[in-house]
Amino acid sequence: AKMIASAAYRMGLNVAIIENHSNSPAGDMTKNDFVNGWTIKDDLDRFIEISDIITLENEFIDPAILRYISNKRLVYPSPDTMQLIQDKYSQKSTFADNHLPVPIFREINSAEDGITFGREFGFPFILKTRKYGYDGYGNATVIDQTTAVSAFEKFKNKDSSILLMAESFVDFDKELAVMIARNQNGDIVVYPTVETIQKNHICHEVIAPAMIDANLRLQAQNLAIEAVKSINGVGMFGVELFLRKGGNILINEIAPRPHNSGHYTIEACYTSQFENTIRAVCNLPLGSGELICGGAAMINLLGERDGLGVPKDVSQILKYPTVSLHLYNKKQSRIGRKMGHITAVSQSTHEAHNIAKLAADSIVW
Amino acid sequence: AKMIASAAYRMGLNVAIIENHSNSPAGDMTKNDFVNGWTIKDDLDRFIEISDIITLENEFIDPAILRYISNKRLVYPSPDTMQLIQDKYSQKSTFADNHLPVPIFREINSAEDGITFGREFGFPFILKTRKYGYDGYGNATVIDQTTAVSAFEKFKNKDSSILLMAESFVDFDKELAVMIARNQNGDIVVYPTVETIQKNHICHEVIAPAMIDANLRLQAQNLAIEAVKSINGVGMFGVELFLRKGGNILINEIAPRPHNSGHYTIEACYTSQFENTIRAVCNLPLGSGELICGGAAMINLLGERDGLGVPKDVSQILKYPTVSLHLYNKKQSRIGRKMGHITAVSQSTHEAHNIAKLAADSIVW
Repeated sequence: AKMIASAAYRMGLNVAIIENHSNSPAGDMTKNDFVNGWTIKDDLDRFIEISDIITLENEFIDPAILRYISNKRLVYPSPDTMQLIQDKYSQKSTFADNHLPVPIFREINSAEDGITFGREFGFPFILKTRKYGYDGYGNATVIDQTTAVSAFEKFKNKDSSILLMAESFVDFDKELAVMIARNQNGDIVVYPTVETIQKNHICHEVIAPAMIDANLRLQAQNLAIEAVKSINGVGMFGVELFLRKGGNILINEIAPRPHNSGHYTIEACYTSQFENTIRAVCNLPLGSGELICGGAAMINLLGERDGLGVPKDVSQILKYPTVSLHLYNKKQSRIGRKMGHITAVSQSTHEAHNIAKLAADSIVW
Repeated sequence: AKMIASAAYRMGLNVAIIENHSNSPAGDMTKNDFVNGWTIKDDLDRFIEISDIITLENEFIDPAILRYISNKRLVYPSPDTMQLIQDKYSQKSTFADNHLPVPIFREINSAEDGITFGREFGFPFILKTRKYGYDGYGNATVIDQTTAVSAFEKFKNKDSSILLMAESFVDFDKELAVMIARNQNGDIVVYPTVETIQKNHICHEVIAPAMIDANLRLQAQNLAIEAVKSINGVGMFGVELFLRKGGNILINEIAPRPHNSGHYTIEACYTSQFENTIRAVCNLPLGSGELICGGAAMINLLGERDGLGVPKDVSQILKYPTVSLHLYNKKQSRIGRKMGHITAVSQSTHEAHNIAKLAADSIVW
């Protein structure tokens, strides 16, 4: 939200933030800060009243609220797109219906459904909640018939109304991601295909462009474009993909917003994902997503303690002259929480990655 | 101020703004917005109280106020440096004392002093106020003995206490500028030598790097470094220089802040002048000022009417995919007022300049 707000300010716009607590990183950047969340109707109405165009920085808002907003103001991505994306089963069905390659997936409405899925498509597979999962939360790995039952029951015991799906386990070589901007005119800008490296299901490093065959990069870009078109996406979208050994690419899922895998675009591309978010939702011409440099690497700064959100010392990071430091000003750190990131840009991707790793190791929390 | 604030936010800092009116572009970006100016002691004290480090976005503040602040908080550039710079005669004397090349200059305390200067060093020359001039305000061109008298009297009739100086007219080939960041440790980062093109004494275009011999670019950078050292500058400094026919370079003057000639660094350099401003005043290691691309060009968007600060249509500018648009969100436009700028980056300076010119022509006010 903070980085979207900065892009809006740069273009001369004003910014209003609605969040369910005060002192949020982006809320600190404006006087138009609505801190009681979007479920308090009066606050939401005041927020709508002073806004011209509304966008989202996460996908966890009830589509009914988005529809309420959309009766009064432009909202992008649209409530329909958001509803479709929020349910990962609908999302994947849409891709499959449009002949886009995805892992095998099925609805799971009983423990027996899970056993059947494993028998038919093999163990291990992933049992996941259809909604509200992120960074590995809401996922369970099912290794055999016994865990198919226990995983199903564990989810249902937490919340009996929860909807589940199964997805075949993809033995991938690399995880890829492509950012796509699309405005209401249908203009599309595609960013380079990047490689993402996860640690404990959390995006940890991004290497741009992905160090894979150029044809595979192009194929991933084309799949990402088709995926965004299939959901009628307007705004900025992060398309996550799997590259399997042998060169086969599958779409994993789509995030309807600026994405961690696109943070590198601030320094490394002609137009950042944040500026193109603003341009897309305002239906303005989009800026180039091409690299301005040879290569870039981004590494997340994850919380290493539960406590204050401020690192003890950043001066070692700043000694790398081609590294940019971003701190999000989150007030509290938790172990594993995304507190900031660094980006290194260089004439080659490999060199950028090496510099980024050295720099990231030097922060003191 | 807005662009400095954005750089501070990016690095996880909070921002407070003190300005003598409400709804200032940077004031809109924070809740810590002090709108009664720095001459109301209570407001100034509250501003000081919540701030850790204070910097300036213009040079027109009374050094006595800076000294008052500096008793309680770090202020960069220092009150001494600011006092020295504010008086262009002291500024030039400091450069001359340090054997740095400057146009011939003298104090002018009477109309006769002006006549003497013209006789000794030739007409035309420039008669200027020692303090508070900018963008050509406070300058008069003296073409002969008669205008030496009339120009002197015109200044004195406006304000009898005004201090004046004369400077020989420099028949330059190009105007150059170099941004220098310097922290309290004395670390220095120098940005590329750029060419600035003025219209009616207002910076209109910046071409980076300057399309001149590489040795001349280096010479300008070295002069700029020495100039900043000579005034013990800590912060960000824009050093303006004249390139005379034949390759002789003179220092014109220095601005103790991010400078219009350095706006291109946001897109075109590893570290922007705004981020290095923050790093310098926080005594952090400085980022690289080198170009990340082949070349860049910046063009100011000057107000073309007296009225609202919002352009009618920016969509034509945004159709140039490698052009970035910055609008300052100033509430009122005046003819010639700097309302925003665009930057084009490209593999060559020449191409960037051509694209920037096409794009700048396409905005509709």
